[in-house]
Order: sequence, then C-alpha cells, then structure tokens
Amino acid sequence: MNIAIAQSGGPTCAINASLLGAFREAVKSGKVDAVFGSINGIEGMLNDDLINLKSVIRTNKDMELLRQTPSTVLGSCRFKLPDAEKDEEPYKKICSCMEKHMIECFCYIGGNDSMDTVVKLSAYFKKHGKPYRVIGIPKTIDNDLPITDHTPGFGSAAKYVATTVQEIIRDSSVYSIDSVTVIEIMGRHAGWLTASTCMLHTIGQEAPHLIYLPEADVTVPQILEDIKRERAKHQAVIVAVSEGIDVSSLAESAGVTTAGVDAFGHKFQNGVGKVLEQIIAREFGCKVRSIELNVMQRCSSHLASKTDIDEAEAIGAAGVRAVLSGETGKMMYFRRISDMPYEVVIDMTDATECANLEKKFPKKWITPSKNNVTDEAIGYFLPLIQGDIKLIEKNGLPEHFNRSIFGVFNSL
Amino acid sequence: MNIAIAQSGGPTCAINASLLGAFREAVKSGKVDAVFGSINGIEGMLNDDLINLKSVIRTNKDMELLRQTPSTVLGSCRFKLPDAEKDEEPYKKICSCMEKHMIECFCYIGGNDSMDTVVKLSAYFKKHGKPYRVIGIPKTIDNDLPITDHTPGFGSAAKYVATTVQEIIRDSSVYSIDSVTVIEIMGRHAGWLTASTCMLHTIGQEAPHLIYLPEADVTVPQILEDIKRERAKHQAVIVAVSEGIDVSSLAESAGVTTAGVDAFGHKFQNGVGKVLEQIIAREFGCKVRSIELNVMQRCSSHLASKTDIDEAEAIGAAGVRAVLSGETGKMMYFRRISDMPYEVVIDMTDATECANLEKKFPKKWITPSKNNVTDEAIGYFLPLIQGDIKLIEKNGLPEHFNRSIFGVFNSL
Repeated sequence: MNIAIAQSGGPTCAINASLLGAFREAVKSGKVDAVFGSINGIEGMLNDDLINLKSVIRTNKDMELLRQTPSTVLGSCRFKLPDAEKDEEPYKKICSCMEKHMIECFCYIGGNDSMDTVVKLSAYFKKHGKPYRVIGIPKTIDNDLPITDHTPGFGSAAKYVATTVQEIIRDSSVYSIDSVTVIEIMGRHAGWLTASTCMLHTIGQEAPHLIYLPEADVTVPQILEDIKRERAKHQAVIVAVSEGIDVSSLAESAGVTTAGVDAFGHKFQNGVGKVLEQIIAREFGCKVRSIELNVMQRCSSHLASKTDIDEAEAIGAAGVRAVLSGETGKMMYFRRISDMPYEVVIDMTDATECANLEKKFPKKWITPSKNNVTDEAIGYFLPLIQGDIKLIEKNGLPEHFNRSIFGVFNSL
Repeated sequence: MNIAIAQSGGPTCAINASLLGAFREAVKSGKVDAVFGSINGIEGMLNDDLINLKSVIRTNKDMELLRQTPSTVLGSCRFKLPDAEKDEEPYKKICSCMEKHMIECFCYIGGNDSMDTVVKLSAYFKKHGKPYRVIGIPKTIDNDLPITDHTPGFGSAAKYVATTVQEIIRDSSVYSIDSVTVIEIMGRHAGWLTASTCMLHTIGQEAPHLIYLPEADVTVPQILEDIKRERAKHQAVIVAVSEGIDVSSLAESAGVTTAGVDAFGHKFQNGVGKVLEQIIAREFGCKVRSIELNVMQRCSSHLASKTDIDEAEAIGAAGVRAVLSGETGKMMYFRRISDMPYEVVIDMTDATECANLEKKFPKKWITPSKNNVTDEAIGYFLPLIQGDIKLIEKNGLPEHFNRSIFGVFNSL
C-alpha cells in the first residue's frame, strides 16, 4: 500500500517540516511501501506527476535541510476541485492515478482552500465506494483557519514580523525629526500577524504605538486622532497595519482613490500602507514612510520558531497516523491546553468545519480604543514563537534542501 | 581630559559596536575622565547636547545589548560643516563645547560625509592652535569608502541580503508558471551589496541568475536579451539589481519615464526594481514582480555577521588609541592581508583620502557579460559574513539597548 503527500497554497517556513513529519511517520509505520510526493499540489495527482520521496529524502542531513527550507519543496498550486456533479473528470483522473500507483492514502498540507479539496475528494471516494482516504494537514501564515488553536507557519511568521518591526523601530528613530512609519503586514482578511507585533510590548518597547486590524472597523478620523495623540508623546510614531483592512473604504472616506498610475500609464492599486502614508502626510506634513514586509514574512526560515517547526512536523506525522488508521475527510488541528506552561494536543475534526472558512482575530482581544490588543492576546502569541532552529550553514549562509534533484523541476 | 564620540549617516548593524569599542578603549586607557556621547552626530557638539556614557553603559549586559542593537543609539545627522572661511560660527560653537566639557578628542563614526567633517574640523583646530584632535571611524552598508578594504556594517548587510535573497528564491519557485523576480538592493552609487548576492552561487544556488551593478553600464536591450536566455533555462528567473543603477537612462532608452502618479495625483519616481518590472512584463508578458529589501538591509541585526561586529568594535577601539596618542585628521581603515585564512590589520590614513569620495565595485570583478561577478569577488565577500552573534533574547525576541534612559530622547 502506498501513500501520497502534497503541498498547497502560499509558502510558509513550516510546510516542509510537515512534509518531513508525514514522510517519516509513513516510513516508520511499516504499513507503507512507497511514499509519493505529488508535484504542485493536487495537480500532481491530476497529471500523474509524482516523485518517490524515499529516493530524494535519503539522509539525516536531507531531513534537517527540509526542516530549515522555506516554501514548498513539492511545489504548490491554487487549483480548486470543481463540484463532482458538474465536472467529474478531475476526480476520475485522481482515482486512476491512485489506482495506478496503488495509493490508498492522500495527505494534503494546506489552508482552507485545500480543506475544500479534502472534503470533496473524501466525499467522492465514499460515494463511489473507493477504498481511498484523504486527510488535511493545516498550514498558513495568516492563522485564519477555524477550529485549530493556531496554524503551522504562523509562529515563524510572527517571530519574523516582531523581530523585524523592532529593528525598523530602531531604524526609524535616528534623526531628530518628527516622523510616522507605517508597517504593512500580511493577513488577507484577518489581523493575526499584525496583532502579533504586540509581543514587542513585553520586551520594553512602547512601539508599535498603534495596531490596526481588519476586525476593528477603524475610521480615518480616528486613525488621524490616534496619530495626533501619539505624535505628542513620541518623535517617531510606529503604526502596524494589516493588509486585510478595507483600504477602499478608508480611501473613500479620506476623499481619495486607491488607484495610482505607473510610468507606463497603467493603473495600479495602492495597498493600505501606501494609502495611510499619503493620508497621514497630508494631515500632518511630517516625514511619513510606509514599509511592506513583503514575501519575507512567509519565507524567512533563518528566523523560524522552533516551536512552530516542531509542531508542523508533529502534525504532519499525526495526519499520517490518522489516515493509516482509516480516517478520511478530516483535518488535523491543535487544541491548546494552557498558555503557561504551554501545552497543546493534536486532534482531528471534519474538514467541513474548516473548508473555505476563516477565523478572525477575536474582537474581545481588541482594546476598546480599537488601536491595540489585550494582554490576553499577548499570552496567546508568545508561546508560538519560542525557540530557534539550529541551522545547517555553509559559507556563513543557511543551506536549503536541493529540490533540483527531483528532476521534474528546472534547476532553481 | 575628556573624549566625545558621535555617530552619523544612515543606520547599520555595526555602528553601535564601534561606539562600544571606542567607549571601552577610552575607559580602559586610564587617560580619560569622562566619555561623552554627542547626540545626533556633530549636532550634539553644536548644541551642547552631550551625555555621559559611563552613566548609561553600566553593565556587561548593556555592552552586549549595544553590540546587538542596530541603528545609532546616539542618534544621527546629515549635517555638513560649511567651509570655515565662509561660516566660522559652527566651528566656534564646537570649540566652546569642547572647552566647556574639557574634551580634547572627538571620534566621529560615519561615512564619507562624516570624513569631510573630520577633515574640516582637524584643519580648523590646527590652524587656530587648538589642542583638540579628531579621528574618523568608518561605517556604511554601501561599502563605498576608499582606502579601506571594506566598511563596518557592510558584512552584516551582505549576510542579510544573501540569506534573504535565497529565501526569496525559494518563495519564487512554488507555482508551475513562468516568472521573473527582480530584487532591488541598496547601494546609492556603488554595487557592492548587490554584487554580494554572488555568495549564493557557492552554496548550490544558480540564482540570482543575473546581477546588475551601476558599474557595468548595462542597457535595456541587453537586459532583455539576458532574461530571454535565462527564461529558456529556468522557470523562475531571479534578478538582483542595484538601486544605484541610472534608472532614468534605462527608462529613457525603453521609451518610458520613471514618473508615476499616486492616488493623490502626486508624482513620484519609481526605483529601478519597479521600472525593470514593467519593462520585463511588457516584453515577455509573464508574471513579474519586484521586491525591495528596504531598510531591513541596514538594520537586521538579528542576522549580523560576527566578523563584522567584532571588527566594528575593534576599529572603534583603534580609533580611540590613535586619537589618544595624538593623531588627528585621520580615518581608521582595514587593510586585508589575505582572503583565506582571512586576516586584516587596522591602519590609518589621512581623512582627506576618503572625505566625499566613493569607491566603486571594481570593473575587473564584473564578468564580460556585464551580468555577473567573478570568483575573485566571491573570495573577497565570503570572509566578511562569517559567524553569528549569540543574541540576548527575552520572550523569544532579541533585546535591544534601551536608549530611553538617555533622557534626552523620547521614549521610543
């Protein structure tokens, strides 16, 4: 009996650790012959593009490198399965791939879109009396999956964001001039990653002075009022703002649009950081700059949280145990027992509880002022960023797992 | 007899280590009573805004924190002294500050602008028979100071840039679509930091596939030709480009301007990354994105090079020894004895050799193709990024030196 594993959605620092955990558990179980990696998510199953993982993950060093390599070594996709009633073709292709390679179990590491695939596939297999089973293993830096206490990948992203924001705070306060620095942080619809900058308040930083989340319904007049107040107290005001904030409505209420025109005459949309930069500069006339942390938030594995990487590996292994024991249509998740001492257990739930759903940052953890978060939130975040990965380095730089040996990839 | 130290120019990860080295050496010498920190560079001497460093750097932990805190804890400035013949007022103010506080020696940590101050001040002191002495201690992430083999701050910036570019390479290759990623790297007029990404080629990375420096006179047709060739070999092409490239002439030759219009109707200038992104997208129609590493390049002390920090401390100490022994108008610098084993000695030169001058990346280290650098360059860069700082952490985050105790600052 064989097993297949795939990775999906946006990159994180922890998704390869989950692959490693799943791979190791499958090998250790003694029940599995081949462990296949499906190239580019579910697309690998559709196109019969699989790789025998035992032939590429061979040494202890390979495994250690997997733990410290960001992004998805198997590649990713954003492919969403159609409803089987409307278009059965992809399902048939997947079944024939599984049959051909004697794959009984499929583990899908991904976010809420991927859980939709877990739900649809498992339902199809059941309905058609197939012996195949499918299980979901969560990941996303956005931390916006329901049921689970947190998602693998989030802790490392939060550690990177807090560490980097502290460094930007230092960078922002060197000249003796008044300034406002707006730092735009990822989170498509939820403010978890932006909120996590509150951890800096526990190590002697007053900044970020203002933290704006999509869950807080903040308005332009209030933001300007907040900044005016902070400017009276601090020469360099630091604002953390989530990319998930409804920038159109902010811009509209400030009497501007979010559209710019580039040097080629093409229109483009400004993000919330840039829009706030402009609104604040217009109001106060001081030096204002906005900084995007960009993709570095999701791939800075040199600063990964050991807790996050260890948990990602453990939940990958738990997923394989579950699917081998006969479970299907489930997503593995973390249930937190306590903040301090930090303790979580891994459990499972119907993937329908997570598929296509989002978990917002709790309103009860936002201060009444709507520009900061509570101590309870700090207690939630802190355990997730603890510990550092001891990196394998060469020439002073972290080494990464070399996926070019997969052959199917080009030589990047 | 007292001594004063000031920091100037843009932030780096190493400038506080030079401050520490200078402070420690002054205390150790037994010749110095008070060690003053001049707040915001030379402006502190002009405004009599000094702080007694012994009262704020008190414990071993304070010193360790200084080593791992980026940016300038004494604040910085961009103030340039006028010619004394045209405006003697600032010189008189500085002299009266030095007289008042019995300061005989002044150490200025900074770049080529700061060396201009060293030159002018030392000349003024000599001409007017003042017993004061002034010495320059180099720093800049741009690595563009003449005479010195390299500048403190550069090694840490290069380590950050190479590490982060490797992570962006991983992030760029997850989807099975053709793409080009343009990474814009700091360096106002010189390509040192961009060139240093070549170090990735020594750890199994083919990327960056193209490295463009201001020293190479590259043209748009050649860039497009290069990218076409790399696209034939790689699904995800990675381009490292220096911000110092003459973007106006690139844009002009591509038949576009660099000017955009923001949502407020304000014009702004696109950087080279954005302009290349647009030129490449127009040519190839594939996914193109540009990423700016932004201020993180100069302040990511969590990833500092131990070699850089140790050297920064050592050259700060050497500066104090020199000024105490009677030297003036000099800049301390590194002379490299060998690449492997790496060995440098600290020497001094007339600050006139460096003031207002820039050292470009050597043309002989650029390949004839103008899109890459030679192995000799790799041998130059590698020693500078070796070793990691063992960070003092609290709650999983690096602690920084708390400059709010200086009192003169607001509480950032």
